[in-house]
Amino acid sequence: MNKIVNPDRVEWKDILKRPTQTVADIEETVNTVFLQVKKDGDASLKRYTEKFDGVSLDSLLVSTREVDEANESVSNDLKNAIQLAKKNIEQFHKSQRTERVVVTTAPGVECWQEKRPIQKVALYIPGGTAPLFSTILMLGIPAKLAGCTEIVLCTPPNKEGKVNPAILYTATLCGITKIVKVGGIQAIAGMTFGTESIPQVYKIFGPGNQYVTVAKQIATKHGVAIDMPAGPSELLVFADDSANPSFVASDLLSQAEHGVDSQVILVSTSETMIGKVELEVEKQLADLPRKDIAKKAIENSKLIYMPDKDSAADLINEYE
Amino acid sequence: MNKIVNPDRVEWKDILKRPTQTVADIEETVNTVFLQVKKDGDASLKRYTEKFDGVSLDSLLVSTREVDEANESVSNDLKNAIQLAKKNIEQFHKSQRTERVVVTTAPGVECWQEKRPIQKVALYIPGGTAPLFSTILMLGIPAKLAGCTEIVLCTPPNKEGKVNPAILYTATLCGITKIVKVGGIQAIAGMTFGTESIPQVYKIFGPGNQYVTVAKQIATKHGVAIDMPAGPSELLVFADDSANPSFVASDLLSQAEHGVDSQVILVSTSETMIGKVELEVEKQLADLPRKDIAKKAIENSKLIYMPDKDSAADLINEYE
Repeated sequence: MNKIVNPDRVEWKDILKRPTQTVADIEETVNTVFLQVKKDGDASLKRYTEKFDGVSLDSLLVSTREVDEANESVSNDLKNAIQLAKKNIEQFHKSQRTERVVVTTAPGVECWQEKRPIQKVALYIPGGTAPLFSTILMLGIPAKLAGCTEIVLCTPPNKEGKVNPAILYTATLCGITKIVKVGGIQAIAGMTFGTESIPQVYKIFGPGNQYVTVAKQIATKHGVAIDMPAGPSELLVFADDSANPSFVASDLLSQAEHGVDSQVILVSTSETMIGKVELEVEKQLADLPRKDIAKKAIENSKLIYMPDKDSAADLINEYE
Repeated sequence: MNKIVNPDRVEWKDILKRPTQTVADIEETVNTVFLQVKKDGDASLKRYTEKFDGVSLDSLLVSTREVDEANESVSNDLKNAIQLAKKNIEQFHKSQRTERVVVTTAPGVECWQEKRPIQKVALYIPGGTAPLFSTILMLGIPAKLAGCTEIVLCTPPNKEGKVNPAILYTATLCGITKIVKVGGIQAIAGMTFGTESIPQVYKIFGPGNQYVTVAKQIATKHGVAIDMPAGPSELLVFADDSANPSFVASDLLSQAEHGVDSQVILVSTSETMIGKVELEVEKQLADLPRKDIAKKAIENSKLIYMPDKDSAADLINEYE
């Protein structure tokens, strides 16, 4: 990690720069894929899955047999953890529901805010280096609580044409029954235009790599809403002398391991703390299953010493 | 208006098509303007204002003198109407504020949803054929209630380099003091990158023509959030035999007069009602100050007879 001591204000913008992404050359690919999927539907999805995921599929839909097999292969420990998370997330989202407030602005004129479920939504769940079943919980539970009637989940298959069992188990637990084995740009295109296997939806949710992000942005031009254009994972931790350096290091690594383009930053008013965290990061990194990814992300990352809390807060506010 | 009687389900998609917009050729212009404004700031804004709005400005900022003059020129009747609207809109938005709900999911783990104001926001208020001071109320009031600390308003000047007095009066009434005379793509670019006159903001709100809409979509690629890509105004009214045809016609015309690309649709289970509304539209159109615009929009518009409420509801749901 790069250590930076009390940087001059004019340098802040440069120091806080994110790792660059080149979007322009992705857009052309996205537009081509969108055009093809709009034209050829499932056939086109299968072609792209073969090209990008290296697997040829007969059926894009996950079968009930695959769901049953997944249910058997997930350990009870993991099932219990997922169920506990579901209970907590459900409790949280339920409590955010609001009552209708009717205001009479003039005699006979009643105004209120109406909250209705979006009828058809899609959840995009990345495959790749980690099965994000947590994302299914965080997207699927509010969708169900809101009352969305049609929820489709798209996730890329692995080289054997399979989806990670934990993803299938979690989706089923959340009541999501339509699971399509398709990822990347082609998945977003499918949800935007609809194909034989994927219904056309009104809003697409979920994270993804830069291809998925650009595809989601292009989708908005075709009349589909998106949650947001998700960037790479990033985290900024502020710690003074009272922090536990081991916890701080774990927090930083928890996001750094998301992807090689992740960025984590520690801002501290204590040079001692910065030294301790740096050692802890090195130590914990050695044992991390995803250390190759985290290591690369750590290269984008920074330890910044600021002399006092006020200037630290100013710097942090620059990191928009 | 085109009258359509009980159309076959396979025709619905075609019938409900919106007037086409060609986005592709706008994008190039938007990218060019963005590049220039990022590079040259105010100088570039002034050049584009001269080119697109046909007026050369010394200062882009509205002066306090201009605000004072506007305050004097707006009639008391209009002021009272704006103040009444402000009171009503304020009452409505205040009542939508929610309390913080804290949930304890496990001992020591407290979760809540945190709602905070966006520090720097921009409101885009179209000029052109109508001064949308109503939009200032509907955007500025919630921004103020939320506690946004920096609110900038951009609106195009007329050929004399002036902004409509009602816009200046309403903005000032809402506590918005930074008003910039710039519109179109260049305004969105200015709010995205910041210039000498316009602060860079985190989120851009407000309607606009197709150039503004595409510019807002491009802005999201540069890290700025937008409310939504606003399309042309449209309205679908469902009326059975119990409706007042004069009210229905007024409702349709109220949106048709927004722009030549607006679209209004009447769906009715009564052919008599459709006939009556058609006559009323003709009659009211003759007296409309904006009849030239409304007339063009009416050409895009449709009167659709459906034999029963169920099929009418199905058709309406197709109009997404």
